Formats: sequence, structure tokens, C-alpha cells
Amino acid sequence: MNTELNKQPHRRYNILTGEWILVSPHRTKRPWQGKTEKNNQEKRETYDPSCYLCPGNSRMGGETNPDYNGVHAFENDFPALLPNGPTEDFDNGLLKAESESGICKVVCFSPDHSLTLPLMDVEDITKVVGLWKKEFEELGSKENINYVQIFENKGSMMGCSNPHPHGQIWSQRSVPTEILKKSKHFKEYWNKNKSSLLSDYLKQELELDERILAKNEHFVALIPYWAVWPYEAMIVPKKHYQHIGQLNAEEEKAFAEIIKKLTIKYDNLFETSFPYSSGIHQAPTNGEEYSEWHFHMSFYPPLLRSATVKKFMVGYEMFAGPQRDITAEQAADNLKELSEVHYLER
Amino acid sequence: MNTELNKQPHRRYNILTGEWILVSPHRTKRPWQGKTEKNNQEKRETYDPSCYLCPGNSRMGGETNPDYNGVHAFENDFPALLPNGPTEDFDNGLLKAESESGICKVVCFSPDHSLTLPLMDVEDITKVVGLWKKEFEELGSKENINYVQIFENKGSMMGCSNPHPHGQIWSQRSVPTEILKKSKHFKEYWNKNKSSLLSDYLKQELELDERILAKNEHFVALIPYWAVWPYEAMIVPKKHYQHIGQLNAEEEKAFAEIIKKLTIKYDNLFETSFPYSSGIHQAPTNGEEYSEWHFHMSFYPPLLRSATVKKFMVGYEMFAGPQRDITAEQAADNLKELSEVHYLER
Ligand SMILES: O=P(O)(O)O[C@H]1O[C@H](CO)[C@@H](O)[C@H](O)[C@H]1O
Ligand SMILES: O=P(O)(O)O[C@H]1O[C@H](CO)[C@@H](O)[C@H](O)[C@H]1O
Repeated sequence: MNTELNKQPHRRYNILTGEWILVSPHRTKRPWQGKTEKNNQEKRETYDPSCYLCPGNSRMGGETNPDYNGVHAFENDFPALLPNGPTEDFDNGLLKAESESGICKVVCFSPDHSLTLPLMDVEDITKVVGLWKKEFEELGSKENINYVQIFENKGSMMGCSNPHPHGQIWSQRSVPTEILKKSKHFKEYWNKNKSSLLSDYLKQELELDERILAKNEHFVALIPYWAVWPYEAMIVPKKHYQHIGQLNAEEEKAFAEIIKKLTIKYDNLFETSFPYSSGIHQAPTNGEEYSEWHFHMSFYPPLLRSATVKKFMVGYEMFAGPQRDITAEQAADNLKELSEVHYLER
Repeated sequence: MNTELNKQPHRRYNILTGEWILVSPHRTKRPWQGKTEKNNQEKRETYDPSCYLCPGNSRMGGETNPDYNGVHAFENDFPALLPNGPTEDFDNGLLKAESESGICKVVCFSPDHSLTLPLMDVEDITKVVGLWKKEFEELGSKENINYVQIFENKGSMMGCSNPHPHGQIWSQRSVPTEILKKSKHFKEYWNKNKSSLLSDYLKQELELDERILAKNEHFVALIPYWAVWPYEAMIVPKKHYQHIGQLNAEEEKAFAEIIKKLTIKYDNLFETSFPYSSGIHQAPTNGEEYSEWHFHMSFYPPLLRSATVKKFMVGYEMFAGPQRDITAEQAADNLKELSEVHYLER
């Protein structure tokens, strides 16, 4: 790693989106009133009678949850998208709109209200991966579903109002902006090099071994060179798979295992239940070939310096582009040295 | 306005960035525990001895503020960018970076610690506009400054740690991502129609009169058709100006007046000091002609339903693209009916 990059302001290029990020490593010297606090430590009950995601409870839409074991998926009671809507354009001069349709689901990771991914067994996280795979295949094979977005908002800081371990899946007719950006760059690289952009990137990262956080036979977790959020990380399969539908049983377990490793490190960093949004980016499901795509899961955690001090993506970031203070290498160093045993379980 | 758009999920197209936003108006029915609370009501002192922006006080970098009247600009003590850095590329395979340089300034809007823009006189806001103009011209004429980003982060919710009325200016060598996107769309429209994209858009909005919040002889404030944040708004000059350097004295005052009107409506909406990030997008300062550019000021406020309930741009929004529940028209209706007198001054 060029040591200059740890000292002077520079921009890094995101090879997947074609966008730049401003890095200001010299700025960490600035004063900060924040401090490391231990919060979120109260252990929750394993069952909460008022939780609309716990087994057997009634939901806001009036339905009752089954007495599920393991994982459970259902259609969102207040979905942002509705299925089978009309397909219309509403163009009026410079006002341009079109109808959109889709299916929104909620995915419960465990019947146990008190858990989070890092506190679950690998075997139980494997069930979550299995459900993602099943939902991806089922939703993706529907006629008007051309993209399936799997994601999790974890922690109230990330707009999650229910701590019961769960994620969401929003699937829709159009292919969203962020996917289009990545498709373009995967495709350009593929056409030019006849190899996967992320396979080649992974090879380089594994050789350099500066930003690697964890790895197993099938997956690598790392801080991407172009990370935006202070502790942003990415999990990449070693095989050039376009989507999670291609994972076999052994690979599903390896995916679960690396998710557990990464999220334990996250929790250990500030000894708190680490908030983040995570999401899986994969090939669209519109029936076209996407040989160039290489699926990956990203984690965007807001915390910067402690369990309560977060990075704000505001003024400059909104109007010009993302900015960060600690470098990707500093973030990787901070995470690398942490135990792989959860602080609550030591 | 097509009434279907107020009922069914749809996507709207941002003519300035080429990106889409998902609108889910049917979703407003979902339950919400938030409520309208009156907070931020404590009147601050006009002078705070511990504030590093008040006149005569010492700053964190060790310097002392002059005993300024009106406005005051100085170089940020902990700048994200440094001037006169080297210009180097650090390319290594798929790791791509380049050095960046620039100048970061802080702009105090008033010596009075207790004020915010909506509580200031038009005459005093005009001084702020005048300073923005002066800084834009001075910074923009420097050799390695090719873009000048003027912005304000208001409120602790927007990462602003000092309530003293102030904004920032980050100016830099490279032209940032968001500006490049808009340049592309301004240019395409200009080449095709030989007129300003925003002039033509404004004409259409003024005819429809559905999303207009305020106007005067020289400026219009409106909710753009493609607004992302719940109460996002845009101030556009009627004349096709590329940057604020072109404003004459009368226009500077009209700009100040419409900023006051819009921010009073904002404060009145939830009877709170309304948080937002605002920023001015204008032509780059690299010496090229930018006839296609039409400068404008945007406001991105996070609040959704009350002084404390905000919209979270998280999971789906980060991984797929922006999503909103209330339509631009509903937001405009809610703001339009509000008084133009500040709730604290009634
Ligand atoms: O420079 P400040 O005011 O300390 O910081 C604030 O504005 C900056 C520019 O938008 C952001 O990078 C910071 O995250 C935010 O807290
Ligand atoms: O659907 P939820 O969990 O109520 O809502 C949360 O996730 C959504 C998808 O990222 C966001 O649109 C909301 O702003 C957020 O609060």
C-alpha cells in the first residue's frame, strides 16, 4: 500500500459503480467529543408478546404468525410495491413517470426475539441463506419480477423499528439504479477481458492481503478499496456466480459462516450491537444472460468512532459525493485485530 | 396532475441526474408511533462564550475570531481537503486512486449565536448571499479549483455539532460525481433544444402550479417532480444563470427573500427548527464554457411526520435506489397552506 495514501487527501475509484470517493486521512486529528460507550447491552427476552414478528403473535395487518421454527417469510403488511399493477407511462413534457409493481416480503431470521446474526449458530444462519436462495428463485421466476433486492436494516439508527432478527426482500418490475450502474461496469470489463471483474479484483486483494477480514473455502470478506462508510465491508464468493441461486449446500454453509465472522467482528469493535444496512447485489431476473455479473453482499454500517458516534452523509456528501476520514486500510486493521468470539459470549 | 399517481406505486425520473425514484403513495396508511412534538424551542443566547464561531472567541485551531458584524468566512481548522497538494495517480491494477487538493471554508451567517436563516432579516440573509458570491468568485478563479460546493448542514440530525448559524464551502480540483451527472443532462438538453433544461422545466411548473411553494420577481421555490426527501425543495432563478456570480444586487436580495420564505415554511411545518442540508449546484470553474448550466439551490430535509420522526434512506434506498411515501404534490400541499410568518414570531 502506497504510504502517501494514508497521509494525504485523495480520491478512490469504485470499479463497480464508476464513482469516486474523497478520502481525508489527515483529518482524523480533529477533536471529537464522542467516546466508547457500552450500550445496547440489555439482553432482550427470547419472546416478546407485543412483537409482530414473534411466532404465534398477530401482525399489524391482522394476520397471525405461524408457530414457526427456524426461518419464516411473509408478504409485508405495508408494502412499498403492489403486485400486478398496470404498466403505464405518465409522460407530460419534462415530467416523466411510469407505474411500478412488485412484491415486498419480510424474512424472520429466527423465532428467538433476542438474537441477531452474530449471536446465531452457523447452522441457523445457513437456514437464512437457504431462505434467501428460495425466495430469490421463486420471486425471480415470476413474470414481472426483474430484480430481487434482499436486504437487512439492523438497529434503530438504521430505521429499523423492531429488534426481532429480520430482513426484507423487495422485488420489482424495473431494474433499480444501483444495479444498472454495476451491470454496466461488470459488462464492460467482461467484454474486454472475458473474466469477472470481481474475480480479478479478489485475486489482487488476496495477493496484497491488506484489506482482507476473513476467508474460508468459498468466500472472502474484505474492506473494498473504495469503501464509503467507515467500516463498509463486502463478502464475495470465490466462484464466479451470478446469483445466490447457484450456491450448493456446502457453499450456503460457508456463506453463513463468513457472515457470522464478519458480524461478530462488527459487534466487537465498539462492544455494541453494530447497526448496519446489508444487501445482496446480484444479476437481474429478467431472463437475459448475465454472465458478467458476480454476486456479492455489502454491509454499510454508520458508526465511526464509538457505539454512538456515527458518520453523517450530509451536505458535501449529498451534493458532491461521498467523503470518509479513516482509510479502508485503517478500517481493515482495526477489524482484523479483533477476536472472532463475540464479546457477550466470552 | 394525473390522479393515478396519488394512489399507485410508480417511479419518477429526475431529468437532472437521469435517475429514478420509487414513490409509494398508498403506503401512507401504515401505522406510525411518531407524533408532532414541539422541541428545539429553547431560545439560545445571542452569544455563547464556548462557541468557536461567535465573534471574538478562540477557535479549535488556536486562532481568534475577529469581532465581526454581519458575515465572516475563514478556512476550516480541520479541512477535508488541503491546498497545493501533489497531483499523482496511484494506479495498481484494479486499485485506482488519485491525489486531490482543495480549500475548505466555514461561513458564519451572523454574529448572533441564537439565529437561523428563517429568523434573520432579508437584509442580513442578503449579506450571506453576497459572501457566497464573493467566495465562489475568489475560490473559483484559483488555478486548481475547478468546482466550488457551497452547502449548509442544519441541525444535529444532519451532523451539525454547532448551532451557531453557519455553512461551509468545499472547493476542489476535480469536478464531483453529482455535478458530472447534472452536467451531462444539462448538456444533452442544451445541444438538442438550444434552451436551458431548468428554464423549460420552470415554465412547465409555473403553468401547472401544483408544486410551487413561493415565488418573487427573480426566483421560484418548488418541490421538484422527482423529489427524494419527503419535503425536498429547490430554488431556481428565473434567468438562465450558470452560477451565483452573475446575480446583481437586486437579484441577491430576491434570492435572500425566497430563502427566508421557504425556511419559514419549513420551521412552521412541525413547529421546530427544521433540519436540512442545503447546497448550491452550479457550473464548474475550470474555465470552460458551461452555457447549458442553470444554477439552483436544493434543500434535503430528513423529517417525515414530526419534529422527531425522520425518513431513513437505508437498506432498499442504499442498495437499489431512493424511495418515498408521500408524493411531491402532497408535500407541496402541506407546505403551501402554511403561514409565511415564523411560528416563534407570531
Ligand atoms: O465538517 P463538519 O461540520 O464537522 O462535518 C459535517 O459535515 C461534513 C460535510 O458534509 C461531513 O463530512 C460530516 O460527516 C458532518 O458531520
Ligand atoms: O419497511 P420498514 O422496515 O418499516 O422501513 C425501513 O426500511 C425501508 C426500506 O429500506 C425504508 O424505506 C424505511 O425508510 C425504513 O425505515
